[in-house]
Amino acid sequence: MEAPLEYAIGIDIGGTNTKFGIVNHRGEISHRGEISSTNHTEVEDFITELYENLKPAIKEIGGEELIKGIGVGAPNGNYYNGNIEFAPNLQWKGVIPLAKLIHKKFKIACILTNDANAAAVGEMMYGAARGMKDFIMITLGTGVGSGIIANGQLILGHDGFAGELGHTIIRPGGRLHKGTGMKGSLETYASATGIAATANEMLEKNPKENSLLRKLPAKKIDSKAVFEAAVKGDKIAKEVFKFTGRILGEALANFVMFSSPEAIILFGGVCKAGDMLMKPVKKHMEKNLLPIFQNKIKLLFSELKESDAAILGASALVWEKK
Amino acid sequence: MEAPLEYAIGIDIGGTNTKFGIVNHRGEISHRGEISSTNHTEVEDFITELYENLKPAIKEIGGEELIKGIGVGAPNGNYYNGNIEFAPNLQWKGVIPLAKLIHKKFKIACILTNDANAAAVGEMMYGAARGMKDFIMITLGTGVGSGIIANGQLILGHDGFAGELGHTIIRPGGRLHKGTGMKGSLETYASATGIAATANEMLEKNPKENSLLRKLPAKKIDSKAVFEAAVKGDKIAKEVFKFTGRILGEALANFVMFSSPEAIILFGGVCKAGDMLMKPVKKHMEKNLLPIFQNKIKLLFSELKESDAAILGASALVWEKK
Repeated sequence: MEAPLEYAIGIDIGGTNTKFGIVNHRGEISHRGEISSTNHTEVEDFITELYENLKPAIKEIGGEELIKGIGVGAPNGNYYNGNIEFAPNLQWKGVIPLAKLIHKKFKIACILTNDANAAAVGEMMYGAARGMKDFIMITLGTGVGSGIIANGQLILGHDGFAGELGHTIIRPGGRLHKGTGMKGSLETYASATGIAATANEMLEKNPKENSLLRKLPAKKIDSKAVFEAAVKGDKIAKEVFKFTGRILGEALANFVMFSSPEAIILFGGVCKAGDMLMKPVKKHMEKNLLPIFQNKIKLLFSELKESDAAILGASALVWEKK
Repeated sequence: MEAPLEYAIGIDIGGTNTKFGIVNHRGEISHRGEISSTNHTEVEDFITELYENLKPAIKEIGGEELIKGIGVGAPNGNYYNGNIEFAPNLQWKGVIPLAKLIHKKFKIACILTNDANAAAVGEMMYGAARGMKDFIMITLGTGVGSGIIANGQLILGHDGFAGELGHTIIRPGGRLHKGTGMKGSLETYASATGIAATANEMLEKNPKENSLLRKLPAKKIDSKAVFEAAVKGDKIAKEVFKFTGRILGEALANFVMFSSPEAIILFGGVCKAGDMLMKPVKKHMEKNLLPIFQNKIKLLFSELKESDAAILGASALVWEKK
């Protein structure tokens, strides 16, 4: 007789939406769903809505006995204590004992970590980092997140908050980050928001340079618009990616000299720029590395579908747990 | 009957001298010795001299059967393959299979790692990091080295070269590092050499400012002279430490956001400056940290005697080895 199948539930809590699914050991997702993250001021009500959505699926696969655990990726999620702590983009403020509340409602063990860590674990189990024991995942979206794997393990730090590489200072005294008040952090340049800011700055500094981007009001210029203009050969738009790639490449060189990863894996919306971003990133990373690190760190895009990665990554936490 | 005592040999290979000793499990060093690192153009002859020096000591403690292993810390020492690879400050060029050669000569297992990693392991077993699973060791000497411990393990990276934090760029486009050709790396500012360079720069930029350091020719100004002048209240000398502390503090903030260590431990000659250095380091580290990291990372000086730390650290590798 075959051993009964085991499943994990993967939940990805984002600032706007929460996605979930049931995942088997091969990384196949079924029973996908999505609810709003902002419908409930009380986190308990949010968990109840999540439960009501997942209940029929749990029943259908054979009941909660077959579910080994629930993995959750969330901003500022702390693996050690299962709390979401002071997440600026969620409406539940302060310290939220999320894993405990989910366990109470579902009667299933729950593991929490931050979203970028979950994505890194997902990439290690199902994506571009299969078989790697040392790599860094950089998520380039509205913000810049990171998950670091060394010796085959997530680097969580003494308090569970390791891997905030988006907030490392790469241009001392540089661009102001409105959320943190710090100047010159990687996130202010390499995020989608940062790319839009760079585009607006460059348009302003080069008033005589023609650009497709001038047809848009400043607030409508986003990283997608910059990419589309660059594809059409727009000079300023291309410069924006060169500049962004330079800053990101310099930052990656610093990260390499920290943990000497086999690969750096880029993930998230900004990656759609492809070679336009990757070429300057690679050039400036290599330029800033000691010779012993040159030409051996792989620079890869994630192999996971963006919509799946977070669910897979969160569920992978369950299989990883001893 | 008590179990027989076990010993480890600790060897620290520096650019000028090589120190060694026999260490017991309590971290007590006996049979200390020192030879020149530069007397032999052939590494085999150097190892023979080392062997001749250690032979009587090994005999005295009861023979090589009681020695569990030999631990060596050396610049660019690679833990994975036991090679010293392209060490700029040693006269043996290229790839030197040091662990293999030592094993052949001594008939005792040999483990090699870079000097800062060895110091970090020593600090974890016998020093300020006892009981810690996540900390960063920064060595501030002629250069700036580092050893990173996360999840209770040395971070070695995929190739054994992780932890080159002295070469991370903290001031893009800044001071030239003559050894690497890179600009603005931490080492160009926070090393003893960097402090001397800062002093000379400040004297030149402020020609009307009186300073005790003006009594010395530029080449005689070293970090010790700057410290002594600062203790006497010399304004420029005090500014040098403020500036150095600021740069180091900013760099440490970046490192914290990588691995969120319980402590950062400073080690090496530059630490003699004490509070003169530590106060600005702490101020600028805290200033550049996200709130979730503020006021919780311990900033400590090493608790190991500098002359002992390297030997203890190298020997500790032997006990650590499974």
